[in-house]
Amino acid sequence: MTQLQYILELLGTFFFAISGALAVRDQHDDLFGAGFMGFVTAIGGGTLRDIMLGSYPLVWIGDINFLYAILVGVLVAYAFFKYLIKLRRTFVLFDTLGISFFTILGVEKALSLGVQPEIAAIMGMFSAVMGGVIRDVLTNDTPVLFRKEIYATACLAGAAIYLVLVNLQIDRTINLLISIAIIFIFRIIAIKFKLSLPNFKR
Amino acid sequence: MTQLQYILELLGTFFFAISGALAVRDQHDDLFGAGFMGFVTAIGGGTLRDIMLGSYPLVWIGDINFLYAILVGVLVAYAFFKYLIKLRRTFVLFDTLGISFFTILGVEKALSLGVQPEIAAIMGMFSAVMGGVIRDVLTNDTPVLFRKEIYATACLAGAAIYLVLVNLQIDRTINLLISIAIIFIFRIIAIKFKLSLPNFKR
Amino acid sequence: MTQLQYILELLGTFFFAISGALAVRDQHDDLFGAGFMGFVTAIGGGTLRDIMLGSYPLVWIGDINFLYAILVGVLVAYAFFKYLIKLRRTFVLFDTLGISFFTILGVEKALSLGVQPEIAAIMGMFSAVMGGVIRDVLTNDTPVLFRKEIYATACLAGAAIYLVLVNLQIDRTINLLISIAIIFIFRIIAIKFKLSLPNFKR
Repeated sequence: MTQLQYILELLGTFFFAISGALAVRDQHDDLFGAGFMGFVTAIGGGTLRDIMLGSYPLVWIGDINFLYAILVGVLVAYAFFKYLIKLRRTFVLFDTLGISFFTILGVEKALSLGVQPEIAAIMGMFSAVMGGVIRDVLTNDTPVLFRKEIYATACLAGAAIYLVLVNLQIDRTINLLISIAIIFIFRIIAIKFKLSLPNFKR
Repeated sequence: MTQLQYILELLGTFFFAISGALAVRDQHDDLFGAGFMGFVTAIGGGTLRDIMLGSYPLVWIGDINFLYAILVGVLVAYAFFKYLIKLRRTFVLFDTLGISFFTILGVEKALSLGVQPEIAAIMGMFSAVMGGVIRDVLTNDTPVLFRKEIYATACLAGAAIYLVLVNLQIDRTINLLISIAIIFIFRIIAIKFKLSLPNFKR
Repeated sequence: MTQLQYILELLGTFFFAISGALAVRDQHDDLFGAGFMGFVTAIGGGTLRDIMLGSYPLVWIGDINFLYAILVGVLVAYAFFKYLIKLRRTFVLFDTLGISFFTILGVEKALSLGVQPEIAAIMGMFSAVMGGVIRDVLTNDTPVLFRKEIYATACLAGAAIYLVLVNLQIDRTINLLISIAIIFIFRIIAIKFKLSLPNFKR
């Protein structure tokens, strides 16, 4: 299980790097710009979480494999740009799988550092979405967080479910599968039916 | 005194969260977007200060009540949006009171961690204004720091006064009242008379 | 050597502060805005590096002289604005010298904290360029990182050369001179001949 998890983390980092690199715009359209975007997208969320929790060394600083996963991701994006850019739909699936998975891993890491469940849920959400937010801030886009479909909310909901199931002493593997699936399904349904939260101004 | 201070800190957090949530724009106008803005506005400054000083755990991670103060603030903003948005003037007062208070508390916290007075003044100012700056960066607004009326400058001035009075061994409670009042009055006068610092380009 | 290095670091900070303060735009054109920009430009990169590495206290918090170097830089920029703004070309030289120097110092600091060479190279690049990036994000400009000419790439290249020469056990002073010179020359040539990396989208 632990080894499978490690491989999944590297794989998630790899996909995040591809998706970040594919987000290049005309204004910063060169290999370095794309590489930097891939890097920030992939490590931003976990880095912010670990800095807030004071957990050192940061994952990608302590284990060089994450850097290589990003590098390979960026090079794959570079080599197959024209092909990959047509696969946007497939990428939404990968991205959604990625944020589902990283949310719950982030919750677990925060819990293991002894914070309260409410804080762990926020940290899980941060792990999943803040990489994309930092990327968007750097490129002066509206952060993905604020686009209409349910996004970070799905992460928070899944994190809450995970915490409830921990409280009910459900087996960890089963809990992981359930709560990851809930985020994934919640998000896909929200995209499909263009669901969104109630407006604030009315 | 200590208990009063704790209640005031929670109250300040509550008001910062309301003011953050009220800052929602059309582009990210849903309950999550507003909640996130309230959260960032309320905890951003103190979080940046504590990360820079290496002071862990962060206040809101170590004490869950701050999270609840924010949650209540956002829900109040949601429930009474139409009413509150008309009270902008009152909110300027609350906001000014909030930054005055948080500036001096930030100075005290930095001093207690053993930094030099000049650094403590900067940290006090950061505590008060950086939450709003991060909020503005996330929404692609011009950071509040750079709008014309004297804002962060008032915080710096009040922090300097506080440090001088500490040096003169003035009683802490009196010092708090004086230096908080100075920030408050300085800022209100600046708004009233549209004061601003000399231009840089001439 | 150590004392020379300390003086050079203060000098680099001083020049970074000038260049940051000169970047004021109409929207935030007052003494505080310019001072804040100078401050962020000068300390941003090293601060991000040290926070990521968990290295406390931050340089400018542990040694007040850096703050004074920035203050003097901002005041010089204020006093001689009209004159300095005409020296843009000279400033490109100073800026390039500054990023060359800070890159290698950043690599050395990261290595001394025991990280792997690849991480040290990234940290060196961060030390040099992230102050400007944070400045650009605060003013809603396109981060300097993403402008066309080779910029951060030159830092990465110089960092790599430095690490290779360390491996070959070249004397440190000679290594410093070589790798700093390489960044400087690489960047100046890139500006002169408008070199850029291959585009990502083709």
